[in-house]
Amino acid sequence: MKPEQIKQLFEEVREGKVSPDEAVQRMHHLPFEDLGFAKVDHHRLLRNGMPEVIFGQGKSPAQVFGIFQKLAERGTNVLVTRATREHWEAVNSQFPSALFHEQARAIVLRQDDTNSGKGRIAVVSAGTSDIPVAEEAVITAETMGNEVDRLYDVGVAGIHRLLSNREVLQNARVVIVCAGMEGALPSVVGGLVGIPVIAVPTSIGYGASFQGLAALLGMLNSCASNVSVVNIDNGFGAAYVASIINRL
Amino acid sequence: MKPEQIKQLFEEVREGKVSPDEAVQRMHHLPFEDLGFAKVDHHRLLRNGMPEVIFGQGKSPAQVFGIFQKLAERGTNVLVTRATREHWEAVNSQFPSALFHEQARAIVLRQDDTNSGKGRIAVVSAGTSDIPVAEEAVITAETMGNEVDRLYDVGVAGIHRLLSNREVLQNARVVIVCAGMEGALPSVVGGLVGIPVIAVPTSIGYGASFQGLAALLGMLNSCASNVSVVNIDNGFGAAYVASIINRL
Amino acid sequence: MKPEQIKQLFEEVREGKVSPDEAVQRMHHLPFEDLGFAKVDHHRLLRNGMPEVIFGQGKSPAQVFGIFQKLAERGTNVLVTRATREHWEAVNSQFPSALFHEQARAIVLRQDDTNSGKGRIAVVSAGTSDIPVAEEAVITAETMGNEVDRLYDVGVAGIHRLLSNREVLQNARVVIVCAGMEGALPSVVGGLVGIPVIAVPTSIGYGASFQGLAALLGMLNSCASNVSVVNIDNGFGAAYVASIINRL
Amino acid sequence: MKPEQIKQLFEEVREGKVSPDEAVQRMHHLPFEDLGFAKVDHHRLLRNGMPEVIFGQGKSPAQVFGIFQKLAERGTNVLVTRATREHWEAVNSQFPSALFHEQARAIVLRQDDTNSGKGRIAVVSAGTSDIPVAEEAVITAETMGNEVDRLYDVGVAGIHRLLSNREVLQNARVVIVCAGMEGALPSVVGGLVGIPVIAVPTSIGYGASFQGLAALLGMLNSCASNVSVVNIDNGFGAAYVASIINRL
Amino acid sequence: MKPEQIKQLFEEVREGKVSPDEAVQRMHHLPFEDLGFAKVDHHRLLRNGMPEVIFGQGKSPAQVFGIFQKLAERGTNVLVTRATREHWEAVNSQFPSALFHEQARAIVLRQDDTNSGKGRIAVVSAGTSDIPVAEEAVITAETMGNEVDRLYDVGVAGIHRLLSNREVLQNARVVIVCAGMEGALPSVVGGLVGIPVIAVPTSIGYGASFQGLAALLGMLNSCASNVSVVNIDNGFGAAYVASIINRL
Amino acid sequence: MKPEQIKQLFEEVREGKVSPDEAVQRMHHLPFEDLGFAKVDHHRLLRNGMPEVIFGQGKSPAQVFGIFQKLAERGTNVLVTRATREHWEAVNSQFPSALFHEQARAIVLRQDDTNSGKGRIAVVSAGTSDIPVAEEAVITAETMGNEVDRLYDVGVAGIHRLLSNREVLQNARVVIVCAGMEGALPSVVGGLVGIPVIAVPTSIGYGASFQGLAALLGMLNSCASNVSVVNIDNGFGAAYVASIINRL
Amino acid sequence: MKPEQIKQLFEEVREGKVSPDEAVQRMHHLPFEDLGFAKVDHHRLLRNGMPEVIFGQGKSPAQVFGIFQKLAERGTNVLVTRATREHWEAVNSQFPSALFHEQARAIVLRQDDTNSGKGRIAVVSAGTSDIPVAEEAVITAETMGNEVDRLYDVGVAGIHRLLSNREVLQNARVVIVCAGMEGALPSVVGGLVGIPVIAVPTSIGYGASFQGLAALLGMLNSCASNVSVVNIDNGFGAAYVASIINRL
Amino acid sequence: MKPEQIKQLFEEVREGKVSPDEAVQRMHHLPFEDLGFAKVDHHRLLRNGMPEVIFGQGKSPAQVFGIFQKLAERGTNVLVTRATREHWEAVNSQFPSALFHEQARAIVLRQDDTNSGKGRIAVVSAGTSDIPVAEEAVITAETMGNEVDRLYDVGVAGIHRLLSNREVLQNARVVIVCAGMEGALPSVVGGLVGIPVIAVPTSIGYGASFQGLAALLGMLNSCASNVSVVNIDNGFGAAYVASIINRL
Repeated sequence: MKPEQIKQLFEEVREGKVSPDEAVQRMHHLPFEDLGFAKVDHHRLLRNGMPEVIFGQGKSPAQVFGIFQKLAERGTNVLVTRATREHWEAVNSQFPSALFHEQARAIVLRQDDTNSGKGRIAVVSAGTSDIPVAEEAVITAETMGNEVDRLYDVGVAGIHRLLSNREVLQNARVVIVCAGMEGALPSVVGGLVGIPVIAVPTSIGYGASFQGLAALLGMLNSCASNVSVVNIDNGFGAAYVASIINRL
Repeated sequence: MKPEQIKQLFEEVREGKVSPDEAVQRMHHLPFEDLGFAKVDHHRLLRNGMPEVIFGQGKSPAQVFGIFQKLAERGTNVLVTRATREHWEAVNSQFPSALFHEQARAIVLRQDDTNSGKGRIAVVSAGTSDIPVAEEAVITAETMGNEVDRLYDVGVAGIHRLLSNREVLQNARVVIVCAGMEGALPSVVGGLVGIPVIAVPTSIGYGASFQGLAALLGMLNSCASNVSVVNIDNGFGAAYVASIINRL
Repeated sequence: MKPEQIKQLFEEVREGKVSPDEAVQRMHHLPFEDLGFAKVDHHRLLRNGMPEVIFGQGKSPAQVFGIFQKLAERGTNVLVTRATREHWEAVNSQFPSALFHEQARAIVLRQDDTNSGKGRIAVVSAGTSDIPVAEEAVITAETMGNEVDRLYDVGVAGIHRLLSNREVLQNARVVIVCAGMEGALPSVVGGLVGIPVIAVPTSIGYGASFQGLAALLGMLNSCASNVSVVNIDNGFGAAYVASIINRL
Repeated sequence: MKPEQIKQLFEEVREGKVSPDEAVQRMHHLPFEDLGFAKVDHHRLLRNGMPEVIFGQGKSPAQVFGIFQKLAERGTNVLVTRATREHWEAVNSQFPSALFHEQARAIVLRQDDTNSGKGRIAVVSAGTSDIPVAEEAVITAETMGNEVDRLYDVGVAGIHRLLSNREVLQNARVVIVCAGMEGALPSVVGGLVGIPVIAVPTSIGYGASFQGLAALLGMLNSCASNVSVVNIDNGFGAAYVASIINRL
Repeated sequence: MKPEQIKQLFEEVREGKVSPDEAVQRMHHLPFEDLGFAKVDHHRLLRNGMPEVIFGQGKSPAQVFGIFQKLAERGTNVLVTRATREHWEAVNSQFPSALFHEQARAIVLRQDDTNSGKGRIAVVSAGTSDIPVAEEAVITAETMGNEVDRLYDVGVAGIHRLLSNREVLQNARVVIVCAGMEGALPSVVGGLVGIPVIAVPTSIGYGASFQGLAALLGMLNSCASNVSVVNIDNGFGAAYVASIINRL
Repeated sequence: MKPEQIKQLFEEVREGKVSPDEAVQRMHHLPFEDLGFAKVDHHRLLRNGMPEVIFGQGKSPAQVFGIFQKLAERGTNVLVTRATREHWEAVNSQFPSALFHEQARAIVLRQDDTNSGKGRIAVVSAGTSDIPVAEEAVITAETMGNEVDRLYDVGVAGIHRLLSNREVLQNARVVIVCAGMEGALPSVVGGLVGIPVIAVPTSIGYGASFQGLAALLGMLNSCASNVSVVNIDNGFGAAYVASIINRL
Repeated sequence: MKPEQIKQLFEEVREGKVSPDEAVQRMHHLPFEDLGFAKVDHHRLLRNGMPEVIFGQGKSPAQVFGIFQKLAERGTNVLVTRATREHWEAVNSQFPSALFHEQARAIVLRQDDTNSGKGRIAVVSAGTSDIPVAEEAVITAETMGNEVDRLYDVGVAGIHRLLSNREVLQNARVVIVCAGMEGALPSVVGGLVGIPVIAVPTSIGYGASFQGLAALLGMLNSCASNVSVVNIDNGFGAAYVASIINRL
Repeated sequence: MKPEQIKQLFEEVREGKVSPDEAVQRMHHLPFEDLGFAKVDHHRLLRNGMPEVIFGQGKSPAQVFGIFQKLAERGTNVLVTRATREHWEAVNSQFPSALFHEQARAIVLRQDDTNSGKGRIAVVSAGTSDIPVAEEAVITAETMGNEVDRLYDVGVAGIHRLLSNREVLQNARVVIVCAGMEGALPSVVGGLVGIPVIAVPTSIGYGASFQGLAALLGMLNSCASNVSVVNIDNGFGAAYVASIINRL
């Protein structure tokens, strides 16, 4: 509820169109719809003009379908992350144009193709195994109206591979870097560019990687100052942050 | 060494002005100066046009002074973080205009007052004890040419304090949120704005705060998607990231 | 064994009805029954007047049935937590009125509908995925004779959703708050009410949530002083604590 | 701002006493005072009728004095926790009746001797070394208007000491149990009573106690269902929770 | 190789029966047999007169059978811990008298019924779920020639159950205590007896039990000085230690 | 209170010497003395016939002296562990025969020289830096009436040093092994003997030793089955366990 | 790109054979081939003359086959680690001479039998369960052209087994030691030899082994100075390091 | 005791020069000297021909002097690591040629200038703050007879600084890389060379560096296969390993 609306309400009260009691009621009336298991929040949608997102993990196909249907009515893009093929089958029956990006584990319904970014987003990954997380970032960023460049398999133990593809970084306005194991790539990338780097630790590795903890700690301790970090395997979050930066 | 310089070099070789041997030598000649204990990197300075920064912790006053003097010659702003009064005294003798911000533990030499940000940066803190970290962010952001608003002591257990000061958030282009203990403030702020939120866990707390680990984990798991995180107590890093976002 | 009973015993000894030897024996005779695999403790039942509870996890349907049968004879309510459908089927054959609450993973046999609480208990949850833990709390609290209000999906990143439902909190005598990820909700709720808040971290999340550790640490470090904490996913324990508070 | 006040405001608008613009302004006017370094929140005071509390750790004597003076004006009790003798000296000059409880590390100004509890609070501690935390709980509970009984040095390795003092537990309405090392005492106490037990892990111990982590984990895993837990060494928090329970 | 054997060898050399070269060879000849995948060590058997033990976990039925067969030839008792039904079936075909203790996950071949203990061993467990670990201890201790008493389901939250069965403890020469969750039972038992208590943390619990870590830390920090600890779920190790103590 | 005493009480009641009311009172009367800050427990002393022990750490010299004086009256040996020179000076004024073992950080008052052990205890340490913990074990064991042999600086990286001193191990009835860093020594010693090995991890090391955690985990995972473990740096506890084993 | 090649390029420019623009292009032309999902790096191959290695875990049989085929063309040995039988079946169809070492979980294609090591590599393991990791090291070292000796099941609790096989260590130029549980073996081996010891912690163990963390920490804290450590279960890495040492 | 000596002994027995009893005695006579607090092990010295090393930390100046004096008699180099100026002053009085390397915290007595390495060792460090650890490695390696090159302040966030100094790496036979914070440098260096890289995590950093844990985990998870790791801040160990590799 914006200040103007509140002022409007006061004016209607002054004009006698609305009684004080009714006004108090209206102030508490906020536009929620109740699906029984999740309150869909239109406010957030209005607030930042971005597609609504469903976190698929742990939800049944029927639950995903229920929320999806509700959100799709608004005409924006709809994104399901951590989606399974079963989720997609539940959605696809009624939304045949919804696509399933298997590697990214994402369902996308494009209803709005506006390019809302002011530059390109580069998504960089260290190893082949980090690609699912990187793809989640790519699909998210694209669904949020950005142009995206991929630069995969450029881990720090073969630094010339990264260096020989620097132009991808130079064309970007924001960079997302996904890496597991020692998580060193964001530091190196951060040193090569003067733009924001969003680091995504991945759970790739074994033993002392402790499901991505090693990469996470590495990124938090990055000696490159333009690096900030999101949760382990959170390709979606990195792309969300990158998208709102790219709109500024 | 930029592609144009390389092309220029090839052209001089073609024209016979430079021999192949000399050209190879030149290519390896990179503009470092050697202070004995730290190689000052002018490249980074050129690359992103930001002031050079000295991490004061663990360095002797003499070391800080040596690096400071070298960097100050270039005419940019110079910032020393994690600085002590002893560091400042070493610097101040020769740089009387250098200021010591005690709460922020920072020394600043302003030689360049350009406003290079496109909007304002809001620095928000949860409790009184988080202020040193918040001030490090404020001083860093200001030294990097940004206009900054402070919003302090608005922890989540008194949510109305934050809500009644929302206009600070609404005027910002980027928000930095510093919080210790449970580290919940970035999530709440993230839900109120549609712009990037840089979260800084602080080491404030005791017992199960584990020197900021609780706050760090909380922020990494934020349910607000526009939040990214830097290291515990890293007010500088948060301001650095915010500054480069604010320049885009 | 209550002091009155002991005094009674001494009196019988004085009156010669009981010999000293027999009295010593009686004092050691405590009312246990031995089921072979678990000693059912009637004392606890008598002590606090609450239903006996079976922790279903790791027990076979036959074991659950055996204990259930024994406890049901006493006429109190019986609750099985962490129950599976298989547990319920084992119980249901002989106790057709026992209900299985699938989402709460709980079996309930109501034999006593006394309302023993003096006020209402509010059960609040942050996200859709926290509902199973919240429901365990709801079912437990109801089985223990309380009136319960649910307030679900009011996570801190959409703080207006919580604020617009404050009346649920205002009607409560005790509040249970279930949250995973960053676990920030109890702090915000704690700041809105002047009554006890029992915080339940859930294992919901991924990566740096470390199976609920992030939420647990967040809640232990809550800046709201009216918050105390139970184990991760322990909806039962929270409701147990809330119930004994609500009886005071 | 209570609903009645809002309704009042609407009525003044209807009656033309207040213009809509002014009304919007008033709604945003919340009763904060700005001390420069900490916003004193009268709302919280009103909300639960308890004394305001200053967390002394990390604050200078001057800061503590500044906040203390402000809060003392309201006529309620004032409590400083984690206080040092230096804090007290700063306070004592102007508030000669303020007492310093050295073992509890607490400063108390009694201005209100109302007994607001409905029963007694028992504070139990396992070892001699846990007493400072226990005393913090005692002083806090007393300052909040409760009658308190101490039961110290009744660790589980000498279980008869606890059992022979059961009457303290039986006279209580709420129990606070402080224990370091293995943190087992709350479980044993929890099994002896049918009332809420607030467990406080202390940082007492060495080696694998990990500054209270062992005790904390022990208490979170208590097999007694009436136990909830606060942060390590948080005697204040335990007493705060116990006090609001004791008022119900 | 015992000193007497070495002296014997020197004497044979002096007598000319053995050449120096041959003597050197003999000294390096140690009585191993090579099964290809595991060197069976008869020395250990001789050294302490105890049955040889096979750790079944991670071994195939064929591997277990191979080692079992080799060891059984020596006429001592043979014990397989962490055994599965498949292991037992592989063994049983050729050793029909070998028993499978399902709850203890142990296979036992009794070939020697000597009672080698000087007193009784009590095996105490906190909850129903700890019984498999306790049974591993019972079966191990019995196989090693001890008389064993069980005292199960006497957790600290119902302390009278333990107290009313103290005679089991009083009859013992060594006590083994198995407990998960908060792991408090060994401290209480340790305080009741003046004999060695071997504590076995179990992985029973959930959430902040961290697979037995909470119990382990609790036991290591026991305030009872007669407690020493073995690895999580290591019922075998506890019984082994108890057995060699009971032989002293 | 022993069963005979209870029977005696019943008899006095039968004989009319004691009224039932008085009998109930007597049953609750247990022989504690209250020093104000610590209840001295004579029961424990009687129970196991061992000297009373004061844990000096965190106690003031006056507190130590107060408890010491009380305990010394009983004529048993008195031991203060984690003692400082200041503790000793407070004690020494009145107890000139009390000795301060600086390396062991222990004060000992010998009033009873009974040898209560049935064999010798060997105390083995890995490195020079582990000696303080080893000495705490030695002094404790001697004060508890045992004959002790030291075997120091026999770490596993020079295995021949241990092997060439095996006779110390062979003469022992119980072995205590103190080691920091990787904590491997108990496993090797455990493999050389057929008697109980009490392992004491020490906090010696740096970096990834994590104040003794590495050694602790190593010892808990020992592949030698006759090893049990006490807390980090707990030389006292190891000697206490060894002493009660040596008395059996 | 080597300096000679660059000089060659400059000379071609001087001679007018190559234009400056073309020269800049060539400098950026690096010999990658793009398989779509992984850039095969011939440079690394050239750099150290070793076989290329595919980390099989998490890759589909088709992916493994694709990379394998590409690499096999170069005529060097090809190694797939963490390989499954499915991987091998995919490879075997076209490469019938590729062998699957099941215990080592490795596929090897020998195309080059050069012995490139200057001495022998000893691979030592503590227990039967560590053999898969040890075998990964053996197969890797052999594929990289080394002669390898196995010394298995020589854990520290039976130290004479290791000592009686010292000649294997004495014949080696580098030693690899694999151990789980307490991870003590590398320290003992390190003390017996004057050559490099590469320690491999394995995830063998249970409870407080924490999936190899105990062994890892033990090895990092080794009191033998000639020990360095690789990741948990990283038999491949240990053999790689050993191989390049053995070539020096 | 070498096999030849044993054979010699047997021969003397055969020849009747030595009786069997005496021979057994001699076999147990190993050349130790007992300083009271540390057994100096000449064997190790003989075994690998390297200087003896004293770990200074936690030792008194008198202890260091005592061991130093004993070792210096043998004519080899003597090194004290983790040494303080006080250690040096104790040593210097009698050994005026002993040097104190303050930054490396090392005392060196050169009595043997043999160059025993076959190539050069490069010591690389990431930041200015890592230099003390790097210097410990340099001084150790030099004392052990190696030629050493330093390459300092070449952290990964300015990757061109490392690349422009590659010739230092190319001239080396072994590389030691010291890095704190994210610990990424060894991976990058490992990718640039085909020789062994010994990685030393340093405790440099703050917050989520957890005293070097982040760097340690990063290095253990290195994607470069030629990297092995030593303990945090263990510059000595890295140089020791590098030295024995360089002698091969």
